[in-house]
Amino acid sequence: MNIGLDMMGGDYAPSEAVKGLALYLNNNSNQSSVLCIGNEAEVTPLLESYDIATDKRVTIIHAEDVIGYNEPPTKALKEKTQSSISIGFKLLASGQIDAFISAGNTGAMMVGAMYSIKAVEGVLRPTIPTLVPKLNGGTGILLDVGLNSDCKPEQLNQFALMGSEYAKNILDIPNARVGLLNVGEEEGKGNILCQATYPLLKENTQINFCGNIEGRDLFKDNADVVVCDGFTGNVVLKMAESIYEIAAFRQMENDEFFHRFHYENYGGTPVLGINKPVIIGHGISNDKAFKNMIIQAESMIGSDFCEKIKRVFTS
Amino acid sequence: MNIGLDMMGGDYAPSEAVKGLALYLNNNSNQSSVLCIGNEAEVTPLLESYDIATDKRVTIIHAEDVIGYNEPPTKALKEKTQSSISIGFKLLASGQIDAFISAGNTGAMMVGAMYSIKAVEGVLRPTIPTLVPKLNGGTGILLDVGLNSDCKPEQLNQFALMGSEYAKNILDIPNARVGLLNVGEEEGKGNILCQATYPLLKENTQINFCGNIEGRDLFKDNADVVVCDGFTGNVVLKMAESIYEIAAFRQMENDEFFHRFHYENYGGTPVLGINKPVIIGHGISNDKAFKNMIIQAESMIGSDFCEKIKRVFTS
Repeated sequence: MNIGLDMMGGDYAPSEAVKGLALYLNNNSNQSSVLCIGNEAEVTPLLESYDIATDKRVTIIHAEDVIGYNEPPTKALKEKTQSSISIGFKLLASGQIDAFISAGNTGAMMVGAMYSIKAVEGVLRPTIPTLVPKLNGGTGILLDVGLNSDCKPEQLNQFALMGSEYAKNILDIPNARVGLLNVGEEEGKGNILCQATYPLLKENTQINFCGNIEGRDLFKDNADVVVCDGFTGNVVLKMAESIYEIAAFRQMENDEFFHRFHYENYGGTPVLGINKPVIIGHGISNDKAFKNMIIQAESMIGSDFCEKIKRVFTS
Repeated sequence: MNIGLDMMGGDYAPSEAVKGLALYLNNNSNQSSVLCIGNEAEVTPLLESYDIATDKRVTIIHAEDVIGYNEPPTKALKEKTQSSISIGFKLLASGQIDAFISAGNTGAMMVGAMYSIKAVEGVLRPTIPTLVPKLNGGTGILLDVGLNSDCKPEQLNQFALMGSEYAKNILDIPNARVGLLNVGEEEGKGNILCQATYPLLKENTQINFCGNIEGRDLFKDNADVVVCDGFTGNVVLKMAESIYEIAAFRQMENDEFFHRFHYENYGGTPVLGINKPVIIGHGISNDKAFKNMIIQAESMIGSDFCEKIKRVFTS
C-alpha cells in the first residue's frame, strides 16, 4: 500500500506529521509505504532528526507550495498546482498512492475529493462520519456530520448504507444496527425529514434498521450507525468535542470514557462515497492523530472499502 | 400570588409533589398561596404527614380523575373534565390561579396551554426553552427544544424575542446576547433555515444579536439566548441530559459543573408565548424539582412575564 501524507497541513506542520509518522513506523507491524508530500527542505531535516530514513518505505515528494487555511478552496486548488494538496490528489487520481491524508484546508480537501476523485456512481452526495464512543466500551458512527446541511430522505437512506459498510469493514461490526436520530422513539415522530426517512430505512433490506435514536441514547449501545442531516450531525459532533473540553476543564480528561472523546484517538474523518480513500484531519492534529490517520488509511485500503461501496450502489 | 400545583402528575405522584411543597414552604420567604389540585383522600394524609397545614396558604382542590401518561391528550382533556390537569387549566383560564404547574401528561399540558390559555396575539407558535449551564458559572437558555420540529425563519426570530424577555425577567440578564445555533461562525453558514434566519436576527433592533454559535460553544459564555429549530434543540437537550447520566455513571455526578445538568435544579419547562404562566415538569420530577417549579412560577408571576411578552408583540 502507498499512502500519501500531506506534511504541510495542520497547525503544527510539518513537525507533528513527522512525529506521527515516526510513531507509526515504530509501533505498527503492517507497514505501508508512506509518500511524504511537502517542502523537501523543511521535511528532510525533520525526518532525520526523528531517525526516519528515506528509503523504499518513506519517500519525499517535493511540493513547492501550500494552500493556506483561509484560501478559497476551488481557486487555490486550481491556481496552486504545486501545493501539497493539489499534488496529493494528482497522485491519488493517477494511482501512485492508494489513499491521501491531509490536515490542511478542509474546503480544499473536500473540493479535491469531490471533483478530482469524484463520487461513486449512484451516490447522491458523499458524506463524512464521526466515531461515537459508547459507555459500554464499544464504538459507533454518526453521519452526516457536516457535509450536507440540508438533506433529502434518499440521502439519509444512502448514509445508512455507507455507514453500515464502514461499520462492517473498518470497525468490524457485521450487520450493524442502523438508527435514525430523532426526537422520539415511535415511528411518525420528528420533523418532516425524519417522518419521510423512517419508512425508507424500514423498507431497505440492505440495512439492519433498528428505529429512532434520541439524543440521550447516542452514547448507549442501541445502534451502531446513526444517520441524520449534516446540520444536526455537526451540532452534535461539536457538542461531543466540547464534552472532552469540559472534562479537561474539570481535570477529568484522563477518565477512561471522557478521553475517548479526544479527537486524537480517531485521527481524521474519511470521506465516504467517493472512489478512493481520502482522510481529512483536524487542523490541530498532533502526532497521535497523524499516526491514527495512517492506520485508518491502511484499514480502508486493506479492506478495499471504496470498492465495496461501489458494489453496494451497483447491486 | 396563587399557584396551582397538580399533585397527580409525575412518576411518584402525589408524594414528591407534597415533599416539594414542604421544601418550598420551609425555605422560601416570598411565600405564595398554593392550590393543590388532586385527589383529596390521597393528598390530605400526605400533607399531614409532612406537617403542612391546610389554611389560606395551602388549600386542596379536589380532582376526581387523573390523565394517564399514555392517554391521547386532546381526547383526555375533553373527556376527563374532572382530571387534575383539566381543573388546573379551568382555574388558570378563569383567573383563580396565576400559574399552573404539572409534571403529568406532557401532551395534555401542551394542548391545554395552546387551546385553553392560547398563544399571545402575534406569536406564530409558542416555544419551550431549556436552561444551559455555562462553564463560567452563568446560565443561558436554548430554544426551541421540541415544540416545533420544523421552523420558519420568522419563528426563530420570535424565539429570539421571547428568549430575550425570559433572560431579562427570569434570569436577570438585561440586554441578553442572542446567538443562532449554527455549523460555522461566519454569516452565510448553515442550512437553508439558518441562512434565512441570520439576516432577520441581524436586522431585529429589539434584540442584541451576537452572531452564530457552534455546538462546541454552547457551554461557553458567548451568548445568553441561543435559538434553533425544535428538532435540533431537542437532540441537544437530550444529549445534554445524557451528560449528567454519563457523569453519574463515571461517579462524577457531584462535580460542580456536571451537577448543573441535573433536571431537578431547573424544575420544569415554561411554555413561552402563551397568555398565562404554565410550567411543565419532567415525569421523573422529585421534591427538589417541584420546589423549583413553584419558585419558577412565582418568578414568572412576579415579573409579570406574560404581560411583557404581550407588549413585545404589540409594539
